[in-house]
Amino acid sequence: MNIYKILQKKRFNCELSSEEIRFLVEKITTGEVSREQAAAFLMASCINGLSKNETSALTMSMTNSGTKFDFKNLGKPVADKHSTGGVGDKLSLLLLPILLDLGCLVPMISGRGLGHTGGTIDKLESILGYRTVLTEDEIYRQMESVGGMIVSQSPEIAPADKIIYSIRDITATVESDGLITSSILSKKLAEGLNCLLLDLKIGNGAFYPTLESAKELIANMEAVAGECGLNLKIVPTNMDNPLGQNIGNWLEVLETEECLKGNFPQDLLDLTLLLASEMLVLAGIFDYIAKAYAAANESIESGRALDMFHRWISSQGGDLEASRKEYANTPIYIVKAKEKCIIAGFNTKQLGFAAIALKAGRSSPTDTLDFAAGIKLLKKQGDSAEENEAIAVFFARDTSLFEQAEQIFLEAVL
Amino acid sequence: MNIYKILQKKRFNCELSSEEIRFLVEKITTGEVSREQAAAFLMASCINGLSKNETSALTMSMTNSGTKFDFKNLGKPVADKHSTGGVGDKLSLLLLPILLDLGCLVPMISGRGLGHTGGTIDKLESILGYRTVLTEDEIYRQMESVGGMIVSQSPEIAPADKIIYSIRDITATVESDGLITSSILSKKLAEGLNCLLLDLKIGNGAFYPTLESAKELIANMEAVAGECGLNLKIVPTNMDNPLGQNIGNWLEVLETEECLKGNFPQDLLDLTLLLASEMLVLAGIFDYIAKAYAAANESIESGRALDMFHRWISSQGGDLEASRKEYANTPIYIVKAKEKCIIAGFNTKQLGFAAIALKAGRSSPTDTLDFAAGIKLLKKQGDSAEENEAIAVFFARDTSLFEQAEQIFLEAVL
Repeated sequence: MNIYKILQKKRFNCELSSEEIRFLVEKITTGEVSREQAAAFLMASCINGLSKNETSALTMSMTNSGTKFDFKNLGKPVADKHSTGGVGDKLSLLLLPILLDLGCLVPMISGRGLGHTGGTIDKLESILGYRTVLTEDEIYRQMESVGGMIVSQSPEIAPADKIIYSIRDITATVESDGLITSSILSKKLAEGLNCLLLDLKIGNGAFYPTLESAKELIANMEAVAGECGLNLKIVPTNMDNPLGQNIGNWLEVLETEECLKGNFPQDLLDLTLLLASEMLVLAGIFDYIAKAYAAANESIESGRALDMFHRWISSQGGDLEASRKEYANTPIYIVKAKEKCIIAGFNTKQLGFAAIALKAGRSSPTDTLDFAAGIKLLKKQGDSAEENEAIAVFFARDTSLFEQAEQIFLEAVL
Repeated sequence: MNIYKILQKKRFNCELSSEEIRFLVEKITTGEVSREQAAAFLMASCINGLSKNETSALTMSMTNSGTKFDFKNLGKPVADKHSTGGVGDKLSLLLLPILLDLGCLVPMISGRGLGHTGGTIDKLESILGYRTVLTEDEIYRQMESVGGMIVSQSPEIAPADKIIYSIRDITATVESDGLITSSILSKKLAEGLNCLLLDLKIGNGAFYPTLESAKELIANMEAVAGECGLNLKIVPTNMDNPLGQNIGNWLEVLETEECLKGNFPQDLLDLTLLLASEMLVLAGIFDYIAKAYAAANESIESGRALDMFHRWISSQGGDLEASRKEYANTPIYIVKAKEKCIIAGFNTKQLGFAAIALKAGRSSPTDTLDFAAGIKLLKKQGDSAEENEAIAVFFARDTSLFEQAEQIFLEAVL
């Protein structure tokens, strides 16, 4: 086998064998296949597509390029979720405590913000002291003591995916159903999961505007999960509006805590209970949804989920009290309605860009974040506002950003 | 303009503007566009193709990435030729002295062997002392004193082409009519040419087996030359047989000298006079072919071309006498006919591989050559041989290579 012939095959749109894909991924990992050669493969794969067999082989080879965890000895079902990305989407932070409380193991490997969407790792890094990278030993200890974690992809986890992702990011090869599928699932398979819920965001704030546009991704995901023996459930959820009231890293941590204290906005409560109950049934903790739903609700109402949230954050070194002090004096800016109006909705992607303008997200991979930055929405879809009534509050350490962010924000209000 | 959007356009098969191509090539040259990004562009260009406008813009941008020579002040037409590559093709060595003798300037930038074909620079490097790299100052002095040269692509000449070529070589993006056209013409345009003859090799020893298969290349070449104001003549010539009797670097230098002494094999004489007279008319030295043909013939017969050959070689530091001594004791091996036969022809590409097996060429870019190595054919197409009669002589410093080379050679004899 040689890389030149493999590239030539893919260039001329012939299907690669599993052995060829394995060879390619192994040599990308060792560096024997250069980044230029990997880039050529990725571009050819985007243009000519990847078959289901190619996608499965790519996924498994990327998983096998690094450490694979195994928590079987802990005697509990191992479950995880993945979201295709939204605005204000703090579901991972909400679900983890509930699932841990109800007997799931959740070894979540998560990512940073991408495009206009937020990333769970960015949100957690806003908490002073929170360690997003744990060693293999620490991961096993964390799973034994707490039962769950949220960490970023360390160099030992699917290193081939890490290399490939860093190339896709600069070569216009991000949008590819096969490559997206293999990137998501290779990391998840490294977690030693029994089951995975894919929260497929659909709407004007998602990467997939319609369910139709996600058809290929769904087919790919299902095929690869089937091939890899992963119990996958895909749940399409709406992303035509930001989730909850807060967009921005620390703001979303605060909102999560507030929800778990029992003060949920309705949209976040509905989605949390929906996804929690689906995952609990998928993991086999409950037989049917209504039972799981009630249990999740009770976990919140009893305050156990809130306790678990605090326990988990501090187990990974996070200090919420210190963070509260750190961000307490963040400058704010009130956005007011120019005239009496009813808010018909949002261009939610554009709202994401308004948050980026405040440095709650990155325009380019090397940008640094202002963890305190973000947007608190005082009005949501269907609400009315008087002239000069406050409709949102901006937070940012750099007050010079408010003006431009307001322009972007106002364009996002429909 | 940004590279990501350019790659995305090319990925989705939209035509790039001249400005976008110029931006891309400039940033490849400075390194601001990474080799991964260049590889992605090249693969997308191979799969989706390059339009004539894209190819022209790419060619001109690559030329403009480095030094452009200008020999107008020397008051003579500037002409050059390029061959698409053959076996035993020493035409550049034969034509240069004749053209210089008859009043052309020929600032030839040439290349190394590619695949099964030989390269003019490799042939010249077999001559002890011959300098294939000249500085810009030396090039102007050489052109003033001798009127011609054959040099390799120095880092100042079309550096973007050099970077792009080094990436194509490892990413299965060599075969592309647009990329081939731009690579050839960008270097030639840097020479400040008035006219270029393209010797388009067609046959079983060429990259293009039929004229039909070269249709796209011809269209591309003509379009780009038209766009760039280059007077281009494409002359298809046959490559179903090796040219002359010798295949191998030093052997071909010797054969060139022997030809210019008046001892031409018929095929080399015919082709030399054909191409020389075409170039002389193209350059405007003669009005019509018959006159140019007679002049070229007279240049050879008078011995002036031979004198010019010696003058040119020594002006670039080459020492033919020292080289003759150096290679005099090269081990030889006689290949004999297994039975009485008539040679119906050759698989000429395979003959090239037999020469590579003797180390007259490279299997991989990092291989080192044995300049003395090669094949002298004692029989050509249509000749008969008795049982055990010698049909070829192998030359190689490493005698252990003879056996395998003989196997490959015998498979090439039809």
